[in-house]
Amino acid sequence: MKRDDLFETWSRDQLDRVEAALDRFVPAQAPAGLGDAMRYGVLDGGKRLRPLLVLAAAEATGAGASEAALRAACAVELIHAYSLIHDDMPCMDDDVLRRGKPTVHVQFGEAQAMLAGDAMQALAFEVLTPEGSVVEPALQARLVGLLARASGQDGMAGGQAIDLASVGRALGEQELADMHRRKTGALLQASVVMGAACGRVTPLAAAALADYGAAIGLAFQVVDDILDVTQASDTLGKTAGKDADHNKPTYVSVLGLAAARAHAHELHGRAQAALARSGLADAAWLSLLADRVVERDC
Amino acid sequence: MKRDDLFETWSRDQLDRVEAALDRFVPAQAPAGLGDAMRYGVLDGGKRLRPLLVLAAAEATGAGASEAALRAACAVELIHAYSLIHDDMPCMDDDVLRRGKPTVHVQFGEAQAMLAGDAMQALAFEVLTPEGSVVEPALQARLVGLLARASGQDGMAGGQAIDLASVGRALGEQELADMHRRKTGALLQASVVMGAACGRVTPLAAAALADYGAAIGLAFQVVDDILDVTQASDTLGKTAGKDADHNKPTYVSVLGLAAARAHAHELHGRAQAALARSGLADAAWLSLLADRVVERDC
Repeated sequence: MKRDDLFETWSRDQLDRVEAALDRFVPAQAPAGLGDAMRYGVLDGGKRLRPLLVLAAAEATGAGASEAALRAACAVELIHAYSLIHDDMPCMDDDVLRRGKPTVHVQFGEAQAMLAGDAMQALAFEVLTPEGSVVEPALQARLVGLLARASGQDGMAGGQAIDLASVGRALGEQELADMHRRKTGALLQASVVMGAACGRVTPLAAAALADYGAAIGLAFQVVDDILDVTQASDTLGKTAGKDADHNKPTYVSVLGLAAARAHAHELHGRAQAALARSGLADAAWLSLLADRVVERDC
Repeated sequence: MKRDDLFETWSRDQLDRVEAALDRFVPAQAPAGLGDAMRYGVLDGGKRLRPLLVLAAAEATGAGASEAALRAACAVELIHAYSLIHDDMPCMDDDVLRRGKPTVHVQFGEAQAMLAGDAMQALAFEVLTPEGSVVEPALQARLVGLLARASGQDGMAGGQAIDLASVGRALGEQELADMHRRKTGALLQASVVMGAACGRVTPLAAAALADYGAAIGLAFQVVDDILDVTQASDTLGKTAGKDADHNKPTYVSVLGLAAARAHAHELHGRAQAALARSGLADAAWLSLLADRVVERDC
């Protein structure tokens, strides 16, 4: 089989595992409709890029089949999904369409959407700390620390605060990169680092994987900004052109479309170089994921 | 010195430690005003009942001075403070006054308030997982697990979902107790259990402390409901009478005032009996905290 076909098979298998695990972790029986809102917000949707990064990094470090890596993959996706629910709310981006469906607050009301997001953040940390001995306690603590730091004021939430403050303001490329390193980059990078933490990795390889994660984290956002102006809403499954509508600075508005494309290409090269430097023999899926991040059209 | 005076000295010392630690953990330099909103929401305010419960339980199990207990105290307070910020928002309770000050969304806007709450939840788990070896990794994992379970769909967030769904609906005493066991009880109980986990405790004593925590957790809410109808807003530091205004079921509306008072008294007795059963020699502060929960007037 060709490498791309093998990757398709691998990623389909992984996504099935992740979907089944999320289905188990997010309980329908949570009270008063909360479980329904949580499940609506996270099941059956999304590209699941972060879980694939976790599991590809775990694969590269010999832990692809571990319970720890599967739980890390689900925890990262729960954090991502909660952030989308809160982001879409009227006081933030006020978006009514996500993954081709009405957003959670449109479907369940604002209060339930806020609670569902809050509960999903807590659930992410619950998933990382199973009782019993399925995941070694020191690894549990390490994964929680990595995910919490990527989610909070120095990571995703901090990036969103900068994003809020940047509407209608001219940002330089450095400021834009700083915002996106936190807002989307931190969690994408954490996905790679958490996956690698589940396996065995030298300090040198760990540093190279962190560089890989940083490069694709930023590349992802540059491509997002490009797609926001070049694609239609029905391809994206969310409202296209909304950054320009909201007068938000993007890589396209700051650099122009051609330079933004060149920048995505450069970051892709940086990610592949970091993988080569890592010396890991099994980094094929991480390499292909870097290709997908840059070549995707939705 | 009399026992009450010793308690005052102890609790003042503990609150100073907690305040200094929170001041260190919640960074003013978080980007774009996020740090200011977080600090406004958690510093210099509140009775700090949960941190005192953590530290009193740690004291009772020989870990009163430990870094783990101090971090657990701060983490629990961060979760409590984030829940108040989100609770006060227009889509939830829509409250403008908290601890005698404008609520966070009134002061900083709704989007920043939501982000500050989100970031404070992440920070709670960050505080529990320090790098280096100040807290043993297995204890980090245990504390995270306890806090996440008390905060999420089976705990606080689940209770709030029931609360939302109960507006204008007649609840029986059992349903009301179930709601409050999750909404406020779970985090109060977790405070006790987390503090005890920092020290050395027999399974029998641990079970007794969990019973103590459950009893004062419910007593706290019964007293809250009583104060909501008997006290003025300026004594409470928040809007009085709002449960009745919002047509929410309370212990007073379900049981009547006299029976609600009798129930608080009964729960207080249950908490003290559990402490006696624990066999712990140093449970004096937990005993006094149970008194304070029931006798408080704000």
